[in-house]
Amino acid sequence: MARLLRVTGASAAGFFSRLQTPVPTVRTFSMSLTSNQVASPVWNLGRLNHIAIAVQDLEKSKAFYKNVLGAQVGEMASIPEHGVSVVFVNLGNTKMELLHPLGNDSPIAGFLQKNKAGGMHHICIEVDNINAAMMDLKEKKIRILSEEPKIGAHGKPVIFLHPNDCGGVLVELEQA
Amino acid sequence: MARLLRVTGASAAGFFSRLQTPVPTVRTFSMSLTSNQVASPVWNLGRLNHIAIAVQDLEKSKAFYKNVLGAQVGEMASIPEHGVSVVFVNLGNTKMELLHPLGNDSPIAGFLQKNKAGGMHHICIEVDNINAAMMDLKEKKIRILSEEPKIGAHGKPVIFLHPNDCGGVLVELEQA
Repeated sequence: MARLLRVTGASAAGFFSRLQTPVPTVRTFSMSLTSNQVASPVWNLGRLNHIAIAVQDLEKSKAFYKNVLGAQVGEMASIPEHGVSVVFVNLGNTKMELLHPLGNDSPIAGFLQKNKAGGMHHICIEVDNINAAMMDLKEKKIRILSEEPKIGAHGKPVIFLHPNDCGGVLVELEQA
Repeated sequence: MARLLRVTGASAAGFFSRLQTPVPTVRTFSMSLTSNQVASPVWNLGRLNHIAIAVQDLEKSKAFYKNVLGAQVGEMASIPEHGVSVVFVNLGNTKMELLHPLGNDSPIAGFLQKNKAGGMHHICIEVDNINAAMMDLKEKKIRILSEEPKIGAHGKPVIFLHPNDCGGVLVELEQA
């Protein structure tokens, strides 16, 4: 659990400013409430913040996105407190985060042991109220990989949802 | 190869119009050319068009994104000629495509056999000149999973790049 959450730190550095205003989608509640039920707190899902990709060779991957695909790529940053080195790839409407283990206790080392070539690790979607989202999702029996939101990207709170409750995808929600 | 390319069809239906103009990044060539070398054709990488996610249960995944996360979700569409059923999830700045096998010869059946819970299948990035991109990438020894671009989303040409040349990620490039 803690290991997964430490991935969050990879998105903490802000190499690229956001290029657009979040476009929250409207959330509706289809359930009818009885007098004994409490309405779930309102929160809205926003834009895709990033796709995180675990890579075996950060310099090689950086060169691929920069020199082969011609993407706008940042410099490598080491985030030892989160056990990752990271390179951001700016795609204009969103970004990719290339993650590589740093140190012996990296949260993505296990993923790379299982996926020798590297691969897509998680997606991060913004929300406008992380606490309301967490409370609502708990009520809906979605497993959350921490008791409380943790401070992640740009000092903003994040939570991770259990992949088995999300169709096999590790989903990070980040306070917009 | 053909099986992978058939996934392309999943993005053929346009449930959501694009919400913004592509923001191409600027491509630079750092190599110096001699008189015997021919400059690679110029092409620009654009925005992330979609993330494709293979799911075991399309209705369940649709309900998750719509009712649990509150995303803007389209109706399921069957695309028998491409062997998939698809549901689009609009995240404002980009979209997700939830893919489920349709028929006995689906291009994503093998992926789901290996990934029982489902998972991220490929990413699609736009380019402004698919033919120039293909020629340039071939010169750079990136394996492309077809001899020519195939018609994919909205009747636009697409190519797929070999995951082993892209850090374990199946990358689709689509003519913007």
